[in-house]
Amino acid sequence: MLHAVIMAGGSGTRFWPESRGTRPKQLLPIMGSDPMLTETVARLDPLIPAERTWVVTTAPQVEGVRRVCPDLPAENILVEPCARNTSACVGLAAAALHAVDPEATMAVLPADHVIGPKADFQRSLLAGAEAAATPGTFVTFGIKPTYPATGYGYIRRAGKSGNFQGIDCFAVDQFTEKPDATTALSFVNEGVYFWNAGIFVWTAKTILSAMATHMPELIQGLDRIQAAAGTEAFEATLNEVYPTLPAEPVDIGIMEKVDNVQIMIAPYKWSDVGSWKALYDELAETTGDDVAIFPAGGELLTENAKGTLAYSSSEQTIAVLGLDDVVVVHTKDAILVAHRDKSEDVKAIVNRLRESGRDELL
Amino acid sequence: MLHAVIMAGGSGTRFWPESRGTRPKQLLPIMGSDPMLTETVARLDPLIPAERTWVVTTAPQVEGVRRVCPDLPAENILVEPCARNTSACVGLAAAALHAVDPEATMAVLPADHVIGPKADFQRSLLAGAEAAATPGTFVTFGIKPTYPATGYGYIRRAGKSGNFQGIDCFAVDQFTEKPDATTALSFVNEGVYFWNAGIFVWTAKTILSAMATHMPELIQGLDRIQAAAGTEAFEATLNEVYPTLPAEPVDIGIMEKVDNVQIMIAPYKWSDVGSWKALYDELAETTGDDVAIFPAGGELLTENAKGTLAYSSSEQTIAVLGLDDVVVVHTKDAILVAHRDKSEDVKAIVNRLRESGRDELL
Repeated sequence: MLHAVIMAGGSGTRFWPESRGTRPKQLLPIMGSDPMLTETVARLDPLIPAERTWVVTTAPQVEGVRRVCPDLPAENILVEPCARNTSACVGLAAAALHAVDPEATMAVLPADHVIGPKADFQRSLLAGAEAAATPGTFVTFGIKPTYPATGYGYIRRAGKSGNFQGIDCFAVDQFTEKPDATTALSFVNEGVYFWNAGIFVWTAKTILSAMATHMPELIQGLDRIQAAAGTEAFEATLNEVYPTLPAEPVDIGIMEKVDNVQIMIAPYKWSDVGSWKALYDELAETTGDDVAIFPAGGELLTENAKGTLAYSSSEQTIAVLGLDDVVVVHTKDAILVAHRDKSEDVKAIVNRLRESGRDELL
Repeated sequence: MLHAVIMAGGSGTRFWPESRGTRPKQLLPIMGSDPMLTETVARLDPLIPAERTWVVTTAPQVEGVRRVCPDLPAENILVEPCARNTSACVGLAAAALHAVDPEATMAVLPADHVIGPKADFQRSLLAGAEAAATPGTFVTFGIKPTYPATGYGYIRRAGKSGNFQGIDCFAVDQFTEKPDATTALSFVNEGVYFWNAGIFVWTAKTILSAMATHMPELIQGLDRIQAAAGTEAFEATLNEVYPTLPAEPVDIGIMEKVDNVQIMIAPYKWSDVGSWKALYDELAETTGDDVAIFPAGGELLTENAKGTLAYSSSEQTIAVLGLDDVVVVHTKDAILVAHRDKSEDVKAIVNRLRESGRDELL
């Protein structure tokens, strides 16, 4: 059966001051409607129902995950005692799935991306599942680059290997993490490089078998955890073992080492909405020059100002005067005012707050 | 005796969103310490005690005036039923003073200017009182211009007429309201033009007599009001008559028509702090590049940003990223983000709020 494993453990700081340790991006209605995790779950309906949807998260976020996904069975929320990167996260989910459904196919999905239309997305997961049915196959999804981004990983495709559900599938030639600007430009011009969407499809058997070969310490730890599943010792074992697992991205720990990695060209629109600027770009397409995200009663007024992004978590009037391309974010205890093109540097602010012990703002 | 008459009826919108109808600039701690009216009263101590300090204000502000001036006798707060410009305001105070002290000299002071040092300011009022002792003398104070401002009135001095308390006094040649940029520049270059500080000294007799000559309708109205003073009919009479008084600035209604107007060159530092930009300029001299005005617990963080003015009425962290010369003002229900050089245009925002009936923000 096809299961979804949603990775919702990120403690992103890129939407500070709205995002915080216990209020990460995936739990927030950054796009102005539902929390991103809620939308990620809804995007699977009806292809993958709640019983086969799993969320992997960390302890501080469990309550938030339950709140925004009220229909998920409690046992489908897997809690990492600490963050150990994506190979441990994927391994934990694969072991849990394999225990309940040895023939499980898993679609691994980030919790905080914007994707649509939904029907095309579901078709691509079906296509991935078909391709992944061949043992030892690892399916990735590539986004056709629209500009020479330096913030994404790139995947170089080789020859065409098939077509599933009308979606072309290619062998993967090479992964490149965030390239420099010159390299990114040449990638875009070559036409055979795609952004790594961070979405994968494989069977539980295939990924666990690859982990046994390429990350034996990981699989030993996961075996110990899984052996305690359903017993009183489970939580203690998890808390003891998980922090000792190798902390490696699944791309590097597994994907770059196995033979049969495939890339499907995503037939949908995609954005990782990785910054206030990305959010503006995403929403300005439909709202026009200014983007205002407020609860009812909030309002943006601009005078001699263009291209404003205004965001408030409470009823508020925000006036912008004589400034172009600014981002104004208001929360109960902090305000960010940034040039839109500099909004990705908000991590510098977050780092300074951390250094000065202002944990209540993080 | 020397009395102070503080004009505190302004409903300034230039510090929106912090200033509002019931919270005008003079009632706010714009400079980061005490409300400006409180500082204006304190600046008179010990020269003019509370019994001889009068505040003229409007009904919506009376409560605020009492709150920030707890030591003023209740009867020293004169309430205008509506704003009728400065000649009516000054006339109302002159009539009241004359009734309790027929030999009263009055120093007319704006409630919301920044002036120091205090000792030099008090010396200038003493000097003004000495000059004004000659019947028919109207004393103004001139500020040596530091740049060709177009937002102030200018006074052209003629020949020297005396020296009081070490302060030179000149006859006044001409008043010019807010000149254009070219005129302002020539004024500054000529060296005999001074900014009108809006501070005047004269005796109650002198001003009332001039009003009788040049504004007979005003004096007739004031006589009717004064005749009802101390009776049950006072409030009704005031409410009936005051709105019918001619609404003219005292500069135009009186000063430009009388013969003996003098100007004393102010021996103190002065600013009318007429905008967020002016506030920044005033405070940056001592605080350096960034100006942050917060209650305890508030904080400004800047990253790749210069020349920020951050103001909040509540505990708040304000972060500015990648933007120079911005003003960020936070209040409970509204936020202003402006380029500092455009902050005087905040009236455009206020006008739009008024037009759209957002009275709760005004």
